[in-house]
Amino acid sequence: MRTQVGIVGAGPAGLLLSHLLALHGIDSVVVDHRSREHIVARARAGVLEHGSARLLRAAGLGARMDREGIEHGGIYLQYDGVREHLDFRDLTGGRTVMVYAQTEVVKDLVEARQAAGARLEFEVADTRVDELDSRHPVLRYTAADGVRHEVVCDVIAGCDGFHGVCRPSIPDGVLRVFDRDYPYAWLGILAQVPPSTDELIYAYHPDGFALHSLRSPQVSRLYLQVDPDEQLSAWPDERIWEGLRRRFALDGWELADGLIFDRSITPMRSFVAEPMRYGRLFLAGDAAHIVPPTGAKGLNLAIADVTVLAEALVALLRDGRPELADAYSDECLRRVWRATHFSRWMTSMLHRAPGADAMREQLRLSQLRYTTASRAAATSLAENYVGYPPLRLDGLDLPGA
Amino acid sequence: MRTQVGIVGAGPAGLLLSHLLALHGIDSVVVDHRSREHIVARARAGVLEHGSARLLRAAGLGARMDREGIEHGGIYLQYDGVREHLDFRDLTGGRTVMVYAQTEVVKDLVEARQAAGARLEFEVADTRVDELDSRHPVLRYTAADGVRHEVVCDVIAGCDGFHGVCRPSIPDGVLRVFDRDYPYAWLGILAQVPPSTDELIYAYHPDGFALHSLRSPQVSRLYLQVDPDEQLSAWPDERIWEGLRRRFALDGWELADGLIFDRSITPMRSFVAEPMRYGRLFLAGDAAHIVPPTGAKGLNLAIADVTVLAEALVALLRDGRPELADAYSDECLRRVWRATHFSRWMTSMLHRAPGADAMREQLRLSQLRYTTASRAAATSLAENYVGYPPLRLDGLDLPGA
Repeated sequence: MRTQVGIVGAGPAGLLLSHLLALHGIDSVVVDHRSREHIVARARAGVLEHGSARLLRAAGLGARMDREGIEHGGIYLQYDGVREHLDFRDLTGGRTVMVYAQTEVVKDLVEARQAAGARLEFEVADTRVDELDSRHPVLRYTAADGVRHEVVCDVIAGCDGFHGVCRPSIPDGVLRVFDRDYPYAWLGILAQVPPSTDELIYAYHPDGFALHSLRSPQVSRLYLQVDPDEQLSAWPDERIWEGLRRRFALDGWELADGLIFDRSITPMRSFVAEPMRYGRLFLAGDAAHIVPPTGAKGLNLAIADVTVLAEALVALLRDGRPELADAYSDECLRRVWRATHFSRWMTSMLHRAPGADAMREQLRLSQLRYTTASRAAATSLAENYVGYPPLRLDGLDLPGA
Repeated sequence: MRTQVGIVGAGPAGLLLSHLLALHGIDSVVVDHRSREHIVARARAGVLEHGSARLLRAAGLGARMDREGIEHGGIYLQYDGVREHLDFRDLTGGRTVMVYAQTEVVKDLVEARQAAGARLEFEVADTRVDELDSRHPVLRYTAADGVRHEVVCDVIAGCDGFHGVCRPSIPDGVLRVFDRDYPYAWLGILAQVPPSTDELIYAYHPDGFALHSLRSPQVSRLYLQVDPDEQLSAWPDERIWEGLRRRFALDGWELADGLIFDRSITPMRSFVAEPMRYGRLFLAGDAAHIVPPTGAKGLNLAIADVTVLAEALVALLRDGRPELADAYSDECLRRVWRATHFSRWMTSMLHRAPGADAMREQLRLSQLRYTTASRAAATSLAENYVGYPPLRLDGLDLPGA
């Protein structure tokens, strides 16, 4: 079997890459060991940067997002008894973010790819990528029906996440790996209750961080900082709501509660592998980098990676020009490090670190006050939050751009 | 003996306070254990914020500063082989800093006070401040001629620096103290050589931080990050110049060297004592807080403190209104924590920490690139550097304001 681009991973990175390549007549195969049902049901991130939303729209994937997503022109930062609004439209010259769950993006992508007759293989096993330093790397997998396949490719895209097979297929000594854990985790819930806020609230409280996000007019998404070794069983519903009420407490405002129908604890990590390419294997998204969720950057980095990669692969495979493919890793890593720094900055400013001394707390308060009082500092947060640098779409000739 | 304000310490804080009070007809006595010669000769900081320079001018102390000082409209940030300029005038709506050594400010102040017939007592011994919680605190000292004095005051101002007697005179349990050391120090030199730069260069290098400052058209002030336990004897002239040349290296640029006529190693510390008042004792400047020198904030915080204090004491002692004196500590601490945070931020971004891992280095480079590439981030650095928030002069009825 033959394809131009073998794509490992049917998350947002792999599916979007397949879609963008198809718009330019480039053929791909997408394989994933998970089921279609699993992929479209996972509760993940929910904030699309300005550039990510524009890209999806330009690629013909924006109809349901624009109907059901909720455009947000800012966030709230809460600390020390005040809740300050950061107005992104005002601070960034009109840019906004779109609250639209990753789950929904993936649903839209699966539908679009399947409607276009793309080859998506779910529930595959024993995936391997070989001969990566040749001109024809090979993607091998066992399909759901038990048949073993061997796909000869021009390029393989590793979009298979942090635990995927692609990154470990690169020979030892090629990658430089940067890795850091954090001494806290997020306990996240989905609750059947209209959000008590019109825009996200990022709250610092001496008990720890809390985030009030939203999924829809009827569903709230809420998070609490907990210890990384915390067990869900230690958090019955009433303890969760009590913790949230304390951390979001504000005169004249109340947090509405409701039925919790999904809960999980997410550890936090910063991880970068460099370069994002080995021979004819290109890594994209979580396969190459992980950020803590505080700045809502994970999904957006994946979208940015494959936007750059799609342009590079069109140039390489359609026009025979390798320059963009050669620049791919450096181009992406610039943004990856920016987002890694921003995510760590937001995380550190908003989370209580075990053992933090009183001076750390005073410095934190000074930083929070300054971030909301100074237009320059607020703009810096805002421009990173909506996406810095702004994603360039002009390199891809897209129907809706 | 009787005075309205007993001032301990004839550094810039104490002398300036005495001067500002005298402009409003308030009498003071200034005592210091050091000699006049020592005080006007110490090599200290050299950068005056925009508001500090305006204050000195408005108080009639700006003539020599405006003649001999060097106005700077920006700084250079150097890292990873590039030297980027931050244009403060452009970023902050025209604000600048004045390079004029603390030594010179002190000289101007001593001359102005002595010309006005002020009572300045140098080389005093056994200074004590007592009855601080009464309406008439007492300043006791032995003058240079061996005579013991007792001065009954309305207020005592502790402007006697970090190691002074005033802060320790406050009863145990009153002050909350925040303190942090840094794992590096600055080796500073004064050299007989025209500066090789028109504005300060803050350089990050894998060897460590370096700063190219200046004193005059003929004298350069240069600093190198060294270990805190480093000895001057380990740094012969050639090693200093070699270290500076490596850290400032840039294609097409050369560092001129010359005779080193002053050298010292300065440890770095962040320290804040809260509140800055106990009864009728008010602390100002280094007596209440220390910042690392990276953001050039120490002298400027002292000037800001006494500007606020002078206004408060005029209201209290001339008009019988205690509100500003009661607000003094909170008003100053807001700025102190901002400067403490900014100084720590600049310090951390520009110094090599022992044991810093490779991820820390990548995050640092991303931060440096962002700080010079983003107008918002550059403005944030600039507005802090020229003084944030801008010092208000309108509370003091000053002749030149």
